[in-house]
Amino acid sequence: MRLTVYLAGEIHSEWRSEIKAKAQALKLPIDFVGPMEDHDRSDGIGEEILGEQPNAVFRDAAASSFNNLRTEVLLKKADIVVALLGEKYRQWNTAMDASAAIAMNKPLILIRPEELHHPLKELSEKANVTVATVDQAVKALSYIFE
Amino acid sequence: MRLTVYLAGEIHSEWRSEIKAKAQALKLPIDFVGPMEDHDRSDGIGEEILGEQPNAVFRDAAASSFNNLRTEVLLKKADIVVALLGEKYRQWNTAMDASAAIAMNKPLILIRPEELHHPLKELSEKANVTVATVDQAVKALSYIFE
Amino acid sequence: MRLTVYLAGEIHSEWRSEIKAKAQALKLPIDFVGPMEDHDRSDGIGEEILGEQPNAVFRDAAASSFNNLRTEVLLKKADIVVALLGEKYRQWNTAMDASAAIAMNKPLILIRPEELHHPLKELSEKANVTVATVDQAVKALSYIFE
Amino acid sequence: MRLTVYLAGEIHSEWRSEIKAKAQALKLPIDFVGPMEDHDRSDGIGEEILGEQPNAVFRDAAASSFNNLRTEVLLKKADIVVALLGEKYRQWNTAMDASAAIAMNKPLILIRPEELHHPLKELSEKANVTVATVDQAVKALSYIFE
Amino acid sequence: MRLTVYLAGEIHSEWRSEIKAKAQALKLPIDFVGPMEDHDRSDGIGEEILGEQPNAVFRDAAASSFNNLRTEVLLKKADIVVALLGEKYRQWNTAMDASAAIAMNKPLILIRPEELHHPLKELSEKANVTVATVDQAVKALSYIFE
Amino acid sequence: MRLTVYLAGEIHSEWRSEIKAKAQALKLPIDFVGPMEDHDRSDGIGEEILGEQPNAVFRDAAASSFNNLRTEVLLKKADIVVALLGEKYRQWNTAMDASAAIAMNKPLILIRPEELHHPLKELSEKANVTVATVDQAVKALSYIFE
Amino acid sequence: MRLTVYLAGEIHSEWRSEIKAKAQALKLPIDFVGPMEDHDRSDGIGEEILGEQPNAVFRDAAASSFNNLRTEVLLKKADIVVALLGEKYRQWNTAMDASAAIAMNKPLILIRPEELHHPLKELSEKANVTVATVDQAVKALSYIFE
Amino acid sequence: MRLTVYLAGEIHSEWRSEIKAKAQALKLPIDFVGPMEDHDRSDGIGEEILGEQPNAVFRDAAASSFNNLRTEVLLKKADIVVALLGEKYRQWNTAMDASAAIAMNKPLILIRPEELHHPLKELSEKANVTVATVDQAVKALSYIFE
Repeated sequence: MRLTVYLAGEIHSEWRSEIKAKAQALKLPIDFVGPMEDHDRSDGIGEEILGEQPNAVFRDAAASSFNNLRTEVLLKKADIVVALLGEKYRQWNTAMDASAAIAMNKPLILIRPEELHHPLKELSEKANVTVATVDQAVKALSYIFE
Repeated sequence: MRLTVYLAGEIHSEWRSEIKAKAQALKLPIDFVGPMEDHDRSDGIGEEILGEQPNAVFRDAAASSFNNLRTEVLLKKADIVVALLGEKYRQWNTAMDASAAIAMNKPLILIRPEELHHPLKELSEKANVTVATVDQAVKALSYIFE
Repeated sequence: MRLTVYLAGEIHSEWRSEIKAKAQALKLPIDFVGPMEDHDRSDGIGEEILGEQPNAVFRDAAASSFNNLRTEVLLKKADIVVALLGEKYRQWNTAMDASAAIAMNKPLILIRPEELHHPLKELSEKANVTVATVDQAVKALSYIFE
Repeated sequence: MRLTVYLAGEIHSEWRSEIKAKAQALKLPIDFVGPMEDHDRSDGIGEEILGEQPNAVFRDAAASSFNNLRTEVLLKKADIVVALLGEKYRQWNTAMDASAAIAMNKPLILIRPEELHHPLKELSEKANVTVATVDQAVKALSYIFE
Repeated sequence: MRLTVYLAGEIHSEWRSEIKAKAQALKLPIDFVGPMEDHDRSDGIGEEILGEQPNAVFRDAAASSFNNLRTEVLLKKADIVVALLGEKYRQWNTAMDASAAIAMNKPLILIRPEELHHPLKELSEKANVTVATVDQAVKALSYIFE
Repeated sequence: MRLTVYLAGEIHSEWRSEIKAKAQALKLPIDFVGPMEDHDRSDGIGEEILGEQPNAVFRDAAASSFNNLRTEVLLKKADIVVALLGEKYRQWNTAMDASAAIAMNKPLILIRPEELHHPLKELSEKANVTVATVDQAVKALSYIFE
Repeated sequence: MRLTVYLAGEIHSEWRSEIKAKAQALKLPIDFVGPMEDHDRSDGIGEEILGEQPNAVFRDAAASSFNNLRTEVLLKKADIVVALLGEKYRQWNTAMDASAAIAMNKPLILIRPEELHHPLKELSEKANVTVATVDQAVKALSYIFE
Repeated sequence: MRLTVYLAGEIHSEWRSEIKAKAQALKLPIDFVGPMEDHDRSDGIGEEILGEQPNAVFRDAAASSFNNLRTEVLLKKADIVVALLGEKYRQWNTAMDASAAIAMNKPLILIRPEELHHPLKELSEKANVTVATVDQAVKALSYIFE
């Protein structure tokens, strides 16, 4: 039995590579999916496909239609969602993905440093599992197969 | 035909009073619901009901169980959700409520200043309607009855 | 037991007034809802609320966000949907509303002149009932209460 | 991870062959499904299976039962729906398929020439992505795997 | 709290009047709904509204579209379904209504004489409650309020 | 793309073998499932597993729990349901399976001789496709792949 | 806005009267529903309606069909479920009702003495709120309206 | 066609090994999944991953988040649930899993000794099948494939 896990979170650090490496080391039968990690490509995909847009707001709207389409398709294929929220960046789209997972009845593992427990208290309470590191998230996933 | 509208957003300003006043002036048949607006009460409700908790993290978890219960019950009763996101505060719980609305197939009106178009591009694209002011949100609601 | 019926269709003729009058004459306990019938208001509601848009395409997109919000809220309240399709106009939004009704498991009464049986064969086959006139649609509604 | 994509639209041109060829060139792991493309066969399938029907209206109804059965089965298997609407033909069944996709929570990519932005404004606003050419649709699909 | 109960079954005897009378005697807060009980009207409603049909099969199809529309609307409003099956008549439409109720997660009370336990064993096993008389069905309903 | 088809109907004739043979001849990628066809085994499975029951009614109830479990599991796996109803036998369980399919949003092909059009008019109207012979049902299935 | 609350739990003590009294003292707009509290009536309702059964197992099965029907109807009407589990009695049916609530996406307030935290850890983790006394449960309900 | 079966129940005896062995002997195409069977590991997984917790209640809560995550993921993959309840242990989590299965519309086979018929009467009535031994449960599963 293989599981598909969607990794929601910022696309600036290498945290996804870290999760995938750790999961592979444990030989977990998991396929990871996630958003476009090339930040400029992600922001520019709207104009890349549709051509120049009137201003920044419309540029963002166009890009978001393609990014949200991608997220929706992959999120639907996921059995579990892992959402990482950290100190930097607003990450409203990550909170959005995490909440969509809960409302779609997909189990959610929330990774957040303990210092962020207060602004994330509601999301944490609704998530199935809240951990503080990528390492703990991998253990939560591994436990499913043990 | 009356509609119930859930107002999701920060509980520090008076934006909800503004929306209710404007809606009442237009005699809109709308019942507004929302979270506990007394910030200290909201944060302390866990210990208020269950007693002292071991530390701040558990204090937050306890409070969130009661706040999330309240949100869930009221969100279920809502026909529409209005979510306001602004410059101040992390507002991850607001992004969470907004996204829950979408995933529950409840129409969502997103209010955000244009300056925040970039971090909110994905949520904005998924919302039914995106406006910049409380005033415009009231017009969107009013239009449903005209 | 009152029923709410959504009337989907073009907003150029007075067919909705006809249905409402006939239903009232029969004292049917039905509340009718529908789209904005002032055509110019419907097309211009985006710019009316949000201000001028860059071009006609964006003007339409803005208007559609408010019109679709209205349709979604009212369609959700409906127990039955009546969709009228006729010779004039493209009416793709009407076909869209009719199909949304079916997919949402809401009973659909399709009104179409017999001459349009061919382009509407698929929609007609999926609708619960297909009639040719407003009069027959009212009889189908009346029959529910007899 | 393979995806199934339903191609909804007129069955008179070769647009489906174009999409399949482009997708294959990019080696996209996609299986395409769609309606019966032989127009006469599609119209005549009712009488082909059940025998002669009393008149044209019943001939269409019979054919539609088999065509709708096919569409329903294949639409259910689809992860994404691509709907093409153009200048020619009424295409009410295409608008119907596109809208069914949305209501069934299946992502929808709408392909329409910019000249048709006005009659398609509502459908476009509800679709996940709106593009103007088959080429752009393929890019939207390809982006999901990049 | 009032409940709506759909009474599915043959329309030849007065069994519905019996249930309503007994329920009223017990002052149960129940609203009963059901099919058209005038048998000739039920069979002829298709031609009554649409005009003469080519033959008996199409006459039946037309009538069924209006009867099924009625059943669907009322069944949706029901909190509970009572289905009566007896010795006479094929009653396939009753078995159909009873099964639809189960699949729609609406509680079902099946009334059948004990002699019919064998052909109704599967439906009986899936029903919430199986009784042998109208009287017992009323008691099952009454018990909900006691 | 393979499809699973559930064959609901009486277990006295060889109609299922006929469908399977015809489908195989056409090389249709279909897996057929259905009920236990050994009639005595089907009636006696309750006592076979649980031991002797107090009387015939309980004997039937016990058997039905195992038969309904089997039907439910296989029906869930089905993409399409084919239901055959004929002159002989009450077949209330077949009408039950057919209706469950519809309510579960699974496409239904109804096979019934034209002489039974009247008692089956409601079920026929709700089914996706109504045919008169096993041969026509196979053609309806085949058409999906053509 | 009134809420309906289902009170699941043992029917031997007066805990329901306590909750209702406290809620009434706070003038909470809540309608409480629950199971038959007369223990002998609850156990004997099967034979009361259907007549004597072959043995105790069938006596229980008959009673359960009527009790489960009642629970199902009332649980469906509930906005929130409160489940009380205590030291005495097996209470498997209470755990069953509590879990049904969660799986039906109805908010659940679990009341359990702290000494039972271990056998109830899984149910408690899935419940929206876990409290130790009826008093705390009433406060959780009251908070929704404050 | 393979089926996945979730085995819910106490983790103290070897009953799962017994079911798996019997199923394998019959060459049933079934994949069995279930909870962590190492009792100490199951209770301690919270602190194993997150570190020491303030007290026993929080230790249990932490463990339950990981155990419930595992159960939820595996239960979602299951086609059928088998729940074993016996004399020893409170087993409220087993009753919880069994009920979740029913509410999620997954067929449930309940194994319980006849002596426990009374406290399990409601759960038994809602289960698809109730048997007294592991052996009978295997026969119920085997019957699906015969």
